[in-house]
Amino acid sequence: MPSKKVAVLAPVAWRTPPRQYGAWETVASNVTEGLVTRGWDVTLFATKDSVTRANLRGVIERGYEEDPAIDPKVAEYLHISEVFEHAAEFDLIHSHYDFMALTYSRLVSTPVLTTIHGFSSRQIMPVYEKYRDGYFVSISDSDRAPGLNYVATVYNGIDLSLYPMQRSPGDELIFLGRIHPDKGVHLAIEVARRSGLQLVIAGIIQDQNYFRERVEPSLDDPQIRYIGAVDVAGKNKLFARARALLHLNTIPERFGLVLAEANAAGVPVIAMNLGSCGEVIKDGRTGFLVNTVNEAVRALQRLHDIDRTACRERVKQYFSVDAMTDGYERVYHKIFDLEAKRRL
Amino acid sequence: MPSKKVAVLAPVAWRTPPRQYGAWETVASNVTEGLVTRGWDVTLFATKDSVTRANLRGVIERGYEEDPAIDPKVAEYLHISEVFEHAAEFDLIHSHYDFMALTYSRLVSTPVLTTIHGFSSRQIMPVYEKYRDGYFVSISDSDRAPGLNYVATVYNGIDLSLYPMQRSPGDELIFLGRIHPDKGVHLAIEVARRSGLQLVIAGIIQDQNYFRERVEPSLDDPQIRYIGAVDVAGKNKLFARARALLHLNTIPERFGLVLAEANAAGVPVIAMNLGSCGEVIKDGRTGFLVNTVNEAVRALQRLHDIDRTACRERVKQYFSVDAMTDGYERVYHKIFDLEAKRRL
Repeated sequence: MPSKKVAVLAPVAWRTPPRQYGAWETVASNVTEGLVTRGWDVTLFATKDSVTRANLRGVIERGYEEDPAIDPKVAEYLHISEVFEHAAEFDLIHSHYDFMALTYSRLVSTPVLTTIHGFSSRQIMPVYEKYRDGYFVSISDSDRAPGLNYVATVYNGIDLSLYPMQRSPGDELIFLGRIHPDKGVHLAIEVARRSGLQLVIAGIIQDQNYFRERVEPSLDDPQIRYIGAVDVAGKNKLFARARALLHLNTIPERFGLVLAEANAAGVPVIAMNLGSCGEVIKDGRTGFLVNTVNEAVRALQRLHDIDRTACRERVKQYFSVDAMTDGYERVYHKIFDLEAKRRL
Repeated sequence: MPSKKVAVLAPVAWRTPPRQYGAWETVASNVTEGLVTRGWDVTLFATKDSVTRANLRGVIERGYEEDPAIDPKVAEYLHISEVFEHAAEFDLIHSHYDFMALTYSRLVSTPVLTTIHGFSSRQIMPVYEKYRDGYFVSISDSDRAPGLNYVATVYNGIDLSLYPMQRSPGDELIFLGRIHPDKGVHLAIEVARRSGLQLVIAGIIQDQNYFRERVEPSLDDPQIRYIGAVDVAGKNKLFARARALLHLNTIPERFGLVLAEANAAGVPVIAMNLGSCGEVIKDGRTGFLVNTVNEAVRALQRLHDIDRTACRERVKQYFSVDAMTDGYERVYHKIFDLEAKRRL
């Protein structure tokens, strides 16, 4: 569909794609590159230091999380308004920018599609309610708010070439993600202790108190290690040594990119059966869905049931950039059809 | 000019007019009511609990500073976009909402006038630079950024009926304003100590550390009192007992509403000669402009030179709602003329 022009609006907390952490920027990047591969004319609105094969437009030098000189509020207002000021140049604006971009959407005639990467708090819901008639995509069936005009669920897709298959299981348990109570790092530690296995924890510390109180004390134990944030190469090193990824989230997961990344490398995932985990992980086939620490410890005994090749195959089928691009192409065409009818 | 419709966009940190503190909301209210008095068709966009004789439109229940359940970011995006979504109903949008509203201004054809109540940080300057060709009003000649398209300076105007004349001087020195190092509360305390006069301090505590370290220790001294924030009635009680208002700001003042309020009540002002103070206070006539604490102490000896009636008269002439409304009417007509020419 080379005659249609699409603007992809990425967040500017981090570079697109991010150097390390930055799930929303990762997905915005994968959508953009996937569309470029299929011949779409895409312009990525992101930080100026972003890397893309699409046209890049930006007004913010660097991610505001990467440069303390940048005021996040100023960056967001300048960045979001920029794409809307150029709306007439595009047939569709595909926003990954949370509720803020919606407040500009009625001032332009270009349709706006919003991928909702998560409802960060109850307080932002009035914005979604006001703009409920817009076009929305959910990233899992479980992460939906009632009453919004969802066009489809499109699962996040990862670039499988970044995560080569690790054929033989390692000895360690791994945790990958933000150090935050939502992600259940303390539960992963408990599982490691009770199973007697090594645990390597990687990720940015988002909740300092939680780290200090629930993670740091365990690091005296040689069985538990924290290695900070890791980039793709760091993740692959972890996957190479991993027996399983522990993802014992304490609140419903919205999607869980890291589950797909681990599975892509052939690493089975033991995840809490909350939110989207049951959509990403096929219980007994690509890992195990559990409800308690006890169940997680017991699941470790059954890891030999998991075919590591099947893990990767399932990611390819449902959670690859290709699968995601298929999904978004369907959504875009649906919107173009609806808009064409509306103009008649 | 009843055929023209004006939208006044007030901040939503506080109610308009605010119950106590809230300088921007105070001015937005005074502009609105002044225009209504002159027969303009005005719609005030403000919190839903605001009080006005204009048409009131709002989507935010209460000021986000008055209700911790309200997320300021959500409130700002919803509130600002609301006026722009209704832009076609107005001949002019008069924004008191800082840099954020500018980012919507190019998405509508209605002209937008921004009264800049202060540049809160260097980091917001890129927004003003991008939108420099808009219409701007400065609130004093001294608070201007180079390169912006200023239509005029319009001094803030106060409602003189709220501040009746206090004919006889009191015995106390008073400080009125945010408890913040910028406002020089510690210098006012020093002047009180050295002059042997009582000092009453009133205002919200904006900088807790500053209050604890530079103000609170002085409150052991019976000569220095802190009475918290005050409303209009509270201000008048202070004015009735005041010998002079001390305003020893440590950074350039942008306007200084409280100087005009004190003068309106006949109370002389001793102010630091920084920023707009030299525009609001006429040295030797409505108070004294000083450069040091020493000079402030000496100025106290010369208060008998000040004619309290002249203080009020000067406010009436330059800093009243009437004078401000004159100023904005001139600005509006200038913008309407420019826009009419642009459309030819």
